[in-house]
Amino acid sequence: MSKKLVGACLFGQSGGPTAVINASAAGAFLEALKHEEITGIYGAEHGVRGILNDRLFDIRQEDLHELELLKNTPSSALGSVRHKLKPFNVDESEYIRILEVFQKYNIRYFFYNGGNDSMDTCNKISKYLQSQNYECRIIGIPKTIDNDLFGTDHCPGFGSAAKYVATSLMELYLDTHVYDTGIVLIVEVMGRNAGWLTAASTLGAPQGFGPDLIYLPEIPFDVDDFIEDVKNVAARKNNKVIAVISEGIKDQSGKYISEYLVSLKRDSFGHAQLGGTATVLAGIVADKFKIKVRPIEYSLLQRCSAHIASKTDIEEAFNVGAFAVKQAIQGETDKMVAIIRDYQADTYKVSYQLVDVAGSANLEKHVPIEWIKPDRSGMTQEFYDYVMPLIQGEANQPKENSLPRFAHLKKIYAKK
Amino acid sequence: MSKKLVGACLFGQSGGPTAVINASAAGAFLEALKHEEITGIYGAEHGVRGILNDRLFDIRQEDLHELELLKNTPSSALGSVRHKLKPFNVDESEYIRILEVFQKYNIRYFFYNGGNDSMDTCNKISKYLQSQNYECRIIGIPKTIDNDLFGTDHCPGFGSAAKYVATSLMELYLDTHVYDTGIVLIVEVMGRNAGWLTAASTLGAPQGFGPDLIYLPEIPFDVDDFIEDVKNVAARKNNKVIAVISEGIKDQSGKYISEYLVSLKRDSFGHAQLGGTATVLAGIVADKFKIKVRPIEYSLLQRCSAHIASKTDIEEAFNVGAFAVKQAIQGETDKMVAIIRDYQADTYKVSYQLVDVAGSANLEKHVPIEWIKPDRSGMTQEFYDYVMPLIQGEANQPKENSLPRFAHLKKIYAKK
Repeated sequence: MSKKLVGACLFGQSGGPTAVINASAAGAFLEALKHEEITGIYGAEHGVRGILNDRLFDIRQEDLHELELLKNTPSSALGSVRHKLKPFNVDESEYIRILEVFQKYNIRYFFYNGGNDSMDTCNKISKYLQSQNYECRIIGIPKTIDNDLFGTDHCPGFGSAAKYVATSLMELYLDTHVYDTGIVLIVEVMGRNAGWLTAASTLGAPQGFGPDLIYLPEIPFDVDDFIEDVKNVAARKNNKVIAVISEGIKDQSGKYISEYLVSLKRDSFGHAQLGGTATVLAGIVADKFKIKVRPIEYSLLQRCSAHIASKTDIEEAFNVGAFAVKQAIQGETDKMVAIIRDYQADTYKVSYQLVDVAGSANLEKHVPIEWIKPDRSGMTQEFYDYVMPLIQGEANQPKENSLPRFAHLKKIYAKK
Repeated sequence: MSKKLVGACLFGQSGGPTAVINASAAGAFLEALKHEEITGIYGAEHGVRGILNDRLFDIRQEDLHELELLKNTPSSALGSVRHKLKPFNVDESEYIRILEVFQKYNIRYFFYNGGNDSMDTCNKISKYLQSQNYECRIIGIPKTIDNDLFGTDHCPGFGSAAKYVATSLMELYLDTHVYDTGIVLIVEVMGRNAGWLTAASTLGAPQGFGPDLIYLPEIPFDVDDFIEDVKNVAARKNNKVIAVISEGIKDQSGKYISEYLVSLKRDSFGHAQLGGTATVLAGIVADKFKIKVRPIEYSLLQRCSAHIASKTDIEEAFNVGAFAVKQAIQGETDKMVAIIRDYQADTYKVSYQLVDVAGSANLEKHVPIEWIKPDRSGMTQEFYDYVMPLIQGEANQPKENSLPRFAHLKKIYAKK
């Protein structure tokens, strides 16, 4: 065990929110409260931007009951951000500011909850603070509905989004089959470069309520093949076709299908701002077939639907937050918490470990191609074995008048 | 009590599905099984079209457990239809066919579950059969997420859709406030001429998670006012604006806002096929403001989300189905089941009564204008008092592997 490090801890949230991202915050905060080494507990308002702006919430002023409610409150309660730090040998100014704020509050523990970009941010800040001989233990906490982080079996947030995507698709399946008239339903699911969520739309298939066709970004998308697929299903299934597509599908040349319609905007990480792919394809189908076409975008709903979160996911999200704090107290730094699954165990069983941040940042974990059926009709058993445990259990969200009772944080800024 | 009428009963579903429409079918079927007068129990495949095509399911061949599961299975398990019968003095052919099929199966009880149009269908068939001296008791069972049926305090299906709309809006509220950048979220809710569901998006407002602006079809929509409203909220609320609009909003001249973009298709009842209104308005806002705009359509999801159905709604939907059968056995005909609320009672209390079908068909019940705040910021207390009881209680949907376990009907056609 390393030497005892006394000081404040800071927790930040970054990137796209999830239904359970605040469960990790709850895990970290409630764990931090147990340790005498931790002299202050802060939450950064809008992640790194809150550090740069010196806007930190004093978590010790929050009600314990409200911190508990964070487990069932979706969408980055502290505020999130998409902010990419330049390498510090290119521009040191933001790093200087971060060090200044860390010194001001004596922040010796920093936990950053996010996806690939956030792990990169952890890595950069940690390297910089080391170069300045400022002792601070930094642990990344994984989070993303896209499930595309390397080094962890799966990502907190994915299980709940998968459960939403699968359940909603089952319901849409029934709705689509209500009339005796034909319909082509094109459902668009999030996932920029990894098709985990799109694949999860098939989870109701064993019960008979899955999509007919799925298109993941792992495989180049061909519009002619798509038209042919729709035609074949329509012929076989009385003009009822449900196709699920990832927002991130690209053609052979690497051009996003959504770009066929609109000029592309990019966020501050340089990622394409996607959406509208289902509408583009609906237009193409409507031109080719005399069948009603309806595009549906799960849009933001799939990443904030805490009312249908997976209990397993909530618990794991809480645990990765708590584990990060425990490990930092033990002396660990420069790591990301990973969920390790015991594939030898009879039932689903996970443990938590630390993995190298540097190794996982900026890499994306894709769906294995061999798990995707070549005729685009669904996923193999390997995929079900992988995903089904992650959606198990109900959220049992606390309610008030039969509506969700979300956490109400006071959000009092730390004394400057 | 009227004379005992022995014969088969037929149940049909019509119009847009709801999350709880099958609960009414379950109520009717399970009640019908108790009565010796009822010699056969049939379900019409795709409503009136199933009668015209002589495609009736033999419900007695179904598993009792699966019929129970209908309570938590969304979206017209027998199949629905939008088919408008011509007045029989204009074209008698379909009525002749209906009589023929009724005689063939000795159908003496007919229950039709739908909205305004379905009540009109009940009325026409009943009048025709009377003119032919064919004794058949016909009861309409209300259903619509739009809540626009006259004669009943509220409609089965509405409470569950309202709960979905409100809960999802609360989640979207949190998602929208995650970043420190501005966003105008425009959420489109179903409701052709009545804004009940759009109004229900405000139910989370007392908790602090409601929309900023709502636009119901009851009030003519003015694009300039809308732009001004968005501008004012953006100025006051740090460029965060959530506007909820009904798909059915029209301008002063009566033109649907969705028509601003697309040429209008009409369904077989002559209703405009709506959708895309949020996209039209998003385009207009994007032209006027330098704020990110995101349109979201709840689309089909709001009418099939059985996973978040209201327990109160499920029970009432079941009860109206069972009540229809009981009353028909007692000799009643030519009526619609209505839910009557006791507004004098200390807690929410309803009873069921029969009301005239002829009086309610083809009329629409609108949201009282005085319940809509003139500044479009929300609804008055009267609205909350009316709606909140309807969303109470959780669905507790049966699950299989943590996904919904929907009813699997065998759907065996009745012997011809």
